Amino acid sequence: MVTIRSNIRAMSGYVPGEQLNDPDIVKLNTNENPYPPSPRVFEAIRAALTSDSLRKYPQPLGDTFRRAAGRVLGVDPDSILIGNGSDDILTILTRTFVPEGGLIASPSPSYILYKNLAEIQGARFVKVPFTADWRLGENWPKADLAFLPNPNSPSGTVVDSNTIERIATQVNVLVLDEAYADFAGSPLRSEDFASRPNLIRTRTLSKSYSLAGIRFGFAIADPAMVRELIKVKDSYNCDVLSLAAATAAIEDQDYFRERRAKILATRARMAAELAKLGFDVTPSEANFLWCRTAKPMKPIYEELKRRKILVRYMNYDGYDGLRISVGSDAEIDRLLTELRAIL
Amino acid sequence: MVTIRSNIRAMSGYVPGEQLNDPDIVKLNTNENPYPPSPRVFEAIRAALTSDSLRKYPQPLGDTFRRAAGRVLGVDPDSILIGNGSDDILTILTRTFVPEGGLIASPSPSYILYKNLAEIQGARFVKVPFTADWRLGENWPKADLAFLPNPNSPSGTVVDSNTIERIATQVNVLVLDEAYADFAGSPLRSEDFASRPNLIRTRTLSKSYSLAGIRFGFAIADPAMVRELIKVKDSYNCDVLSLAAATAAIEDQDYFRERRAKILATRARMAAELAKLGFDVTPSEANFLWCRTAKPMKPIYEELKRRKILVRYMNYDGYDGLRISVGSDAEIDRLLTELRAIL
Repeated sequence: MVTIRSNIRAMSGYVPGEQLNDPDIVKLNTNENPYPPSPRVFEAIRAALTSDSLRKYPQPLGDTFRRAAGRVLGVDPDSILIGNGSDDILTILTRTFVPEGGLIASPSPSYILYKNLAEIQGARFVKVPFTADWRLGENWPKADLAFLPNPNSPSGTVVDSNTIERIATQVNVLVLDEAYADFAGSPLRSEDFASRPNLIRTRTLSKSYSLAGIRFGFAIADPAMVRELIKVKDSYNCDVLSLAAATAAIEDQDYFRERRAKILATRARMAAELAKLGFDVTPSEANFLWCRTAKPMKPIYEELKRRKILVRYMNYDGYDGLRISVGSDAEIDRLLTELRAIL
Repeated sequence: MVTIRSNIRAMSGYVPGEQLNDPDIVKLNTNENPYPPSPRVFEAIRAALTSDSLRKYPQPLGDTFRRAAGRVLGVDPDSILIGNGSDDILTILTRTFVPEGGLIASPSPSYILYKNLAEIQGARFVKVPFTADWRLGENWPKADLAFLPNPNSPSGTVVDSNTIERIATQVNVLVLDEAYADFAGSPLRSEDFASRPNLIRTRTLSKSYSLAGIRFGFAIADPAMVRELIKVKDSYNCDVLSLAAATAAIEDQDYFRERRAKILATRARMAAELAKLGFDVTPSEANFLWCRTAKPMKPIYEELKRRKILVRYMNYDGYDGLRISVGSDAEIDRLLTELRAIL
């Protein structure tokens, strides 16, 4: 009889958003970017596609990416930790700071993966509730690690810097999960970490750089902290092609800004149109909208799915709604047409 | 003051083999394959290089790879767990079976990463010594998890199936780390896992399929076990390009066998020539040779490095030697020429 750790045996596992293969489907459920990555990404991958780069191990710390990202974002390259998606980064952070029986805190409703990270680590998990208007209270538990998605999912709302400061003084380490921060325009500054060594920011290229398929994320933290995190990561956690893609993507800021502007424009139009349809739409600084109505929400999700539009139905202990990614204008037009027919 | 777990703070971290950028260097230190990957790998990556595949999330479980590998290796696709390199798999296994304060065992001298995995998990680590002729004793501790590299590094030696059976009865879970098994010709059979549910085998495409750069490994275990391991892995731990590359590589068995035969032929010649030079060369079933002489070993490593040949100097509490990867014939000729000049 094999003994599996009881915390693993007991957990149900994170269920990612549906990945349907049907090319006809309008996929608005996992916050992928509707636009292709920069043409420079394709060039960089093709250039990296050599026998030598495939057969040899990649750069363990991703120094080329770190230098490029440091230059573009205005941070010290040594403050950057590369990850196989930001999920990898969140796992590394959990393992570095949270002992078995330790405590992870995060707001609620929020990204449900944090609870799974606590379960895998054999740690306790405490939810800090958002207020009805998506603000956070003053009192946080003395957690080993707190995850604060900023902007938050499913709400798309942002917590202000004063609140962040207050939380940071109460927890051991505060991770700002900035997967969607590029849509809110939060700058990264090395100074923030110099003054506040227990603050760590995480970023992903999945959403704002259209690279969910290649798995690349990174953390920004005090360089002394990064040196500890490096001990915990797998030696070669990012592959040679994703490193090339990520470097090219982050270097093409003109392309990034142009596509970002399109998504923000679509988001504004989409929010206005969904409100006209009777949805209560939370003002979002991310690439998705959290939509609720007095009507039952799950049948709307199901009817949309039947009509080949996939959105994310989310239910937090009875508080439910639809999280709808900001797609292309054509995709959103189709969504709106179908919703008008359904409602 | 940030609290980092004491086990992390105390550890020094795994140091991977040197990755020098000098294109003139003959790199025989990290057991990379000297030959390019199959041409089909390049085709598959180019075919997967579309806007949609980059911007969308990849298959969470790698179903296309699992079906292909299942067919080629003759195992149930549901018995396969995909990993971002076999390091990712070893991490997942550690987290599934080893609680904080638990016990990991592995033979010694062996792959030094296992000790780091124990340190990161906050677990104890026990070494079981090999005999002088690289066999393993009868008595193993009741470990939560035992790692047995087969073939072993640095020796390249294989442990017979009777010994494996005996170890498996003594530990909770036995992981056969078969990173080099393709060079020994160990078949994979689903039956082995049906009869022995605490046995898990891990494989990598880094060495035998020339894909160290793309990071892809997998485990084979009882499907019920794989379902537990899936809970612990990151949702999207393998990217779309590495999945495409791995699938194409494992499907091209003709290419694989041809390159494998070349490496085995070079290995035989290299072993004979190194023996003529006075080295004690352990008979190897991997793509490297463990070489020792009565002379001090480290100066030989250093002199080779000065001459732009990089081998791995390893020192296990005073028992030291050179682990030299089986390169191309031209690379090994250069190694032998330089060694003749040095010795």
